Amino acid sequence: MAGYHVPPLERLVDKFESLPGIGHKSAQRIAYHVLNMSREDAAAFAQAITDAKESIHYCSVCCNLTDGDLCPVCRSDNRDRSIICVVEDPRDVFALERTNEIQATYHVLHGAISPLSGVGPDQLRIKELLKRVQDATVQEVIMATNPTVEGEATAMYISRLLKPLGIRVTRLAYGIPVGGDLEYADEVTLSRAIEGRQEL
Amino acid sequence: MAGYHVPPLERLVDKFESLPGIGHKSAQRIAYHVLNMSREDAAAFAQAITDAKESIHYCSVCCNLTDGDLCPVCRSDNRDRSIICVVEDPRDVFALERTNEIQATYHVLHGAISPLSGVGPDQLRIKELLKRVQDATVQEVIMATNPTVEGEATAMYISRLLKPLGIRVTRLAYGIPVGGDLEYADEVTLSRAIEGRQEL
Repeated sequence: MAGYHVPPLERLVDKFESLPGIGHKSAQRIAYHVLNMSREDAAAFAQAITDAKESIHYCSVCCNLTDGDLCPVCRSDNRDRSIICVVEDPRDVFALERTNEIQATYHVLHGAISPLSGVGPDQLRIKELLKRVQDATVQEVIMATNPTVEGEATAMYISRLLKPLGIRVTRLAYGIPVGGDLEYADEVTLSRAIEGRQEL
Repeated sequence: MAGYHVPPLERLVDKFESLPGIGHKSAQRIAYHVLNMSREDAAAFAQAITDAKESIHYCSVCCNLTDGDLCPVCRSDNRDRSIICVVEDPRDVFALERTNEIQATYHVLHGAISPLSGVGPDQLRIKELLKRVQDATVQEVIMATNPTVEGEATAMYISRLLKPLGIRVTRLAYGIPVGGDLEYADEVTLSRAIEGRQEL
């Protein structure tokens, strides 16, 4: 841009552009939006970033995000501690909580085994899971990792570690999504739905 | 979400969700991204917001964004001060600067007249423009407001104020966009392109 530089604005645009899913145009648009905020709102925005970063850490039991020592699920008295639902990401916990189907506690791995991205079992919170299952109350581990190659590999890896300990390891069912259209289901999903068919 | 609340995280998600073009899912994704930043990067991000907000204001001549008293264009010695290019938004200046076609200076209105959104001429930087054209060096004003109803109305309104002062007021040409497909051009654009046809 011939001679037109406003360094603090460019730095702000760069910061927004580095966020996931935001391109240069959106970053510009957001930066202008921030400049049009009141001074208080902009300060509150900056503060929210610092606050979240400073106060949020991993739950000492399940490794989910929390601002206390234990996360709300591990703190609760109404959860079934004999079942642990293992997920890749904190967002998966939010998704599962919305179903109201899980009375169990969670364990967040913070990723999945992916040799291509250089993520091995040691980078995941698997040691913490193994420590938890040493408690005799744990009877079942539900593998709720993503239905991807990486999620599948992670589920297999963990199940091989847990089964020798006499723990029941289950996996979320594969099948056609509710409200979906058979015509648009891919063959692998459809084959899994046929394999897993249930009595009516 | 049954019992699952992490207030600093929710506040951060809310802040991102309030930005233009970011929905709840993206806001969550971005918030997790911020939590995964190093402490220094998160602090630098928060700082970029505060810095931009504190140091950027309107150029005292053309009302474009700048961190100095004058913007880089108004500061430059190589600009033709006899022509002022009037735009709605600072982003339009960036777009026009990329063409390298404008040797003129700019004037940023910070909006367009829009009775439906309650934006009248008084909310725009029109007074500042009128003050600038009192200087005898100004000979032409190019109306480069958007090709929308609001942009058009604003261009008409300002041209009626300027013409009695003996200033030449021009408007960007309408026509088919370069690289576009005639088939997909709307009728209004096509009519304007025919009206404005030029000798080859």
